[in-house]
Amino acid sequence: MTSADLDLAELGQQLRVDAVRATSSAHSGHATSSMSAADLMAVLLARHLSYDFDWPEHPGNDRLILSKGHASPLLYAAYRAAGVVSEEELMSFRTLGSRLEGHPTPRLPWVDVATGSLGQGLPIGVGVALAGERLGESESRVWVLCGDSELAEGSVWEAFEHAGYERLASLTAILDINRLGQRGPTRHEWDLDAYARRIRAFDWHTVEVDGHDPAAVDAAYAEAKRVTDRPTAILARTRKGRGVKAVEDLEGHHGKPVPDEAEAVAELGGVRDLRVEVARPAATTVPRPPGGPRIELPAYTVGDRVATRDAYGEALAALGSARPEVVALDGEVGDSTRAEFFAKRHPDRYFECYIAEQELVAASVGMAVRGWLPFASTFAAFFTRAHDFLRMAAVSGVGLCLAGSHAGVAIGEDGPSQMGLEDLAMFRALYGATVLYPCDANQTAQLVAELVGESGLRYLRTSRGADPVLYGPDERFPIGGSKLLRSSQDDRLTVVAAGVTVHEALRAADELAEEGVPVRVIDLYSVRPVDAAGLREAAEATGCLLTVEDHRHAGGLGDAVLEAFSDGRPVPRLLRLAVDSMPGSATPEQQLRAAGINAGAIATAARQYLAGYGG
Amino acid sequence: MTSADLDLAELGQQLRVDAVRATSSAHSGHATSSMSAADLMAVLLARHLSYDFDWPEHPGNDRLILSKGHASPLLYAAYRAAGVVSEEELMSFRTLGSRLEGHPTPRLPWVDVATGSLGQGLPIGVGVALAGERLGESESRVWVLCGDSELAEGSVWEAFEHAGYERLASLTAILDINRLGQRGPTRHEWDLDAYARRIRAFDWHTVEVDGHDPAAVDAAYAEAKRVTDRPTAILARTRKGRGVKAVEDLEGHHGKPVPDEAEAVAELGGVRDLRVEVARPAATTVPRPPGGPRIELPAYTVGDRVATRDAYGEALAALGSARPEVVALDGEVGDSTRAEFFAKRHPDRYFECYIAEQELVAASVGMAVRGWLPFASTFAAFFTRAHDFLRMAAVSGVGLCLAGSHAGVAIGEDGPSQMGLEDLAMFRALYGATVLYPCDANQTAQLVAELVGESGLRYLRTSRGADPVLYGPDERFPIGGSKLLRSSQDDRLTVVAAGVTVHEALRAADELAEEGVPVRVIDLYSVRPVDAAGLREAAEATGCLLTVEDHRHAGGLGDAVLEAFSDGRPVPRLLRLAVDSMPGSATPEQQLRAAGINAGAIATAARQYLAGYGG
Repeated sequence: MTSADLDLAELGQQLRVDAVRATSSAHSGHATSSMSAADLMAVLLARHLSYDFDWPEHPGNDRLILSKGHASPLLYAAYRAAGVVSEEELMSFRTLGSRLEGHPTPRLPWVDVATGSLGQGLPIGVGVALAGERLGESESRVWVLCGDSELAEGSVWEAFEHAGYERLASLTAILDINRLGQRGPTRHEWDLDAYARRIRAFDWHTVEVDGHDPAAVDAAYAEAKRVTDRPTAILARTRKGRGVKAVEDLEGHHGKPVPDEAEAVAELGGVRDLRVEVARPAATTVPRPPGGPRIELPAYTVGDRVATRDAYGEALAALGSARPEVVALDGEVGDSTRAEFFAKRHPDRYFECYIAEQELVAASVGMAVRGWLPFASTFAAFFTRAHDFLRMAAVSGVGLCLAGSHAGVAIGEDGPSQMGLEDLAMFRALYGATVLYPCDANQTAQLVAELVGESGLRYLRTSRGADPVLYGPDERFPIGGSKLLRSSQDDRLTVVAAGVTVHEALRAADELAEEGVPVRVIDLYSVRPVDAAGLREAAEATGCLLTVEDHRHAGGLGDAVLEAFSDGRPVPRLLRLAVDSMPGSATPEQQLRAAGINAGAIATAARQYLAGYGG
Repeated sequence: MTSADLDLAELGQQLRVDAVRATSSAHSGHATSSMSAADLMAVLLARHLSYDFDWPEHPGNDRLILSKGHASPLLYAAYRAAGVVSEEELMSFRTLGSRLEGHPTPRLPWVDVATGSLGQGLPIGVGVALAGERLGESESRVWVLCGDSELAEGSVWEAFEHAGYERLASLTAILDINRLGQRGPTRHEWDLDAYARRIRAFDWHTVEVDGHDPAAVDAAYAEAKRVTDRPTAILARTRKGRGVKAVEDLEGHHGKPVPDEAEAVAELGGVRDLRVEVARPAATTVPRPPGGPRIELPAYTVGDRVATRDAYGEALAALGSARPEVVALDGEVGDSTRAEFFAKRHPDRYFECYIAEQELVAASVGMAVRGWLPFASTFAAFFTRAHDFLRMAAVSGVGLCLAGSHAGVAIGEDGPSQMGLEDLAMFRALYGATVLYPCDANQTAQLVAELVGESGLRYLRTSRGADPVLYGPDERFPIGGSKLLRSSQDDRLTVVAAGVTVHEALRAADELAEEGVPVRVIDLYSVRPVDAAGLREAAEATGCLLTVEDHRHAGGLGDAVLEAFSDGRPVPRLLRLAVDSMPGSATPEQQLRAAGINAGAIATAARQYLAGYGG
């Protein structure tokens, strides 16, 4: 049957039946949230989506993001209707090893990003549309199916603002306004105008529609495609659990199968086996040039004072010249993070996200979906704003580079609100993340280039202030490595530092050496993965590791070092210096002293240890 | 001079001069951002603010929140005009030990919350106003001075939505629309209508005004006070750096002193010494009852299967009966977190924040400002959404209790988007935070009561599934303690667990005991602070600690244990089991097995260790 001949209402019922069956089979899952949006999905699939299921990476493909990820049974039912998921696989929903998870993830080739944390699909969709419209790759459309509960998330309004301002006409938000959230009515229930006037105020086109009238929904999608100067939101009034009296528009049925599967299936007209021929995009592709010239990294002179954020900006700009797939995004602090160096060199691949860090990360994720390699920059402290987006990006397995500047108390006078003191803990805990913290300009530049070869989330921590260049421009810094900066056969302990504390550690080592106390110094620029072999060797040679970091105790460098010693073999003695206090305003030098992480504190701790336990 | 006689324009100039002088003295700080809002501040201080500077906790005081915290010089200049900050202290701006930090913090008694991470002041102000209006404490007003750049933050729109929906007429947002952000023009520059129509769509009253016309500003404030059915936003068109030609409305002067202090001061008419008699509130207070009855915690029978989230909900409801200052807030998942048990018992002190976790935490902070003890609940995973708000709440030193449910892979089929796997890392890194993770219902109830006596941020991690009650209802669980659940003189190693893994550890210990291998089991319910003495004792007795946790390796229980061994004394051997993989959908039992943190995995790790390194 061709899609033109399909009875859309029948297809909607099939999707409902399949959602009912999948959730009943699993004894869990969101049947009623799927049923409210079934007609919206049916019409989209049969009449408007342009997608080649055999070639998910096709640049001409539309993108469909299920922002209300808990309605996964509906998505999987649609995949069955499209012929790419079998009856058997549908019934594997939510079981061990099944691709059909409780919330969709890219384990399914047609799912670009994991959803299930609400309010993320639309922000990401903005990035997908932005890449499609601004980077000249494609004229495909982006369809995002949202729930009404998630419209309470501020991130959704960052997305409305971003897309409205950028006039992303290829983006359509489909809002399934079923009136009921998880625990009862939503704030605005069926007041569609409450949503519409908010969304219109953000310069979107809106269409209000009965979400269970296929012809009306069809017309709304067609209208969205005709609007060429702004994104469109389709506000669909729907009923949760539509079609099954035992649950329809009733509270207490969120996230559950229907009470009686057989009765529900019968009420919905029984199991169907309609097949949809989803339209395929035209076979036009705009391949990007296959790699650019060799990257010409900036080079710095040993001994010069250069801030690592400056080196980051210069290296990123250089990387942009060599790698045409690199794009950069910033949260209106590009003059501080130095992402502006990239902006000046590659204005067409630079995206200002203003002060909206969730959208900054989400837009980056969206661009990664289209094959770009995004570098997102803001203050290290402000990446905490996007923690949940980073967490979900890790679930998606998306490739993203993130640079956080203004690390630690070393920023000085601006005080604690601007100090990244928890960022290492946050990034280290994210699945598969690489975490780097350079101490000098040449190391920073080399690590920016190293990031490209990694996968998943990659975080680079940079510093505000200028410190001496320690390494020559040809030195290499493999991820997972470390550098031994001071070493002798008689070392009494090993100081492990990174970033700004490397310079303090070297001063402390020099001071101790003058007192006849040789100590080893390791620059642990690769915080995750750590150089377990190097740390083990230093531990065995010196018996004690003293870690010092411009970060909170918990989750940072000290904890990272311990990863090397969790295999049941002997563990060295440990001393840890980190930021325990709440800083105020002061100069960088005063801050490091007050926090107890400067050269003097390191030397004192070493002396006390050697006079006591380690004597 | 009484405020009525004051020349408001002159007062505005004084505030500018003082902002210029303070930043020039400090060689850093945000002069131009202060100057744009100087007239707004002058009129507020002299004509509308009701505040007793001698009694900051006065329940009748208005509250002034400087959401654009970087304009701190303006706030401090206002304090000088009010006579509470001396000339000398003003000139201590941004120096070590000064209360006048780069961004305001409650080290100053008139500052309720730290600001400087943008987009937080208004969300918090909503909580302050909500407490004032709904908890019958006060008729005071809440004034929040915002920048225009921060209106890009989604959290601000969560706040507009929350306040508009709750019709918080006591709340006034003063928007200093000076057109320029940190690195250049804002998205909407001086398009006041772009802001006004968005804000009106969220059911606020708006007033557009020339922010440098004191009479117009005065009228706008008066209008805001007359509007009794909704909050008001005053959109003030201003010029950054107003009054000094070298910087006025020019780019490149954000976050810096003016280029020539003497010239600027002269241009502004010189140093003034106007004093404002700020109006004091009427001396009415509504004291809350001084403590309620003794708390009657729920009691559970050993061996029964009860989810810790159920015990949390029941204990919270009981706490609410005993402690009238306790309020509860939830992010539309109260049926899951069990905060709904409190809602049913104390509907007047329960606040539904819908799916907006930033506003959930911000509103809690606002209520704490007025002396309430908030318990905010959502899924552990979704507190990551509010990471930056939690970070700033720690800077503020605000007292908040937070309960995160659905911890770890043990939730089962819903999959990774719903699993709290990074929450311990996040909370452990927050300044001064207490982190608790109970394993049974009686322990949970006791810990809920223990939380009340702590200060700062307090996090309780609860589980979705039911596990056996291990402890009797009279057992006590001091914060910073642990429980020895299995112990003998011949223990070969110590398993350290918390929450769901305690039950797995006990099963593993029983299994190993049957093989003639006694192992010790510690329930480390207090993750921060940890029981360093107890861990040290177990380490010395058994030589090896095996930690097992339903959380990522980084930043969780394993890292917490190490805090006990960072003093240079010998460190035990370590084995760590945590969640390294990316879970999919599966039953709770399958999840624990797949993640390698179930009883079988513990027993295997113990056997391998004892056969190898520890043999």
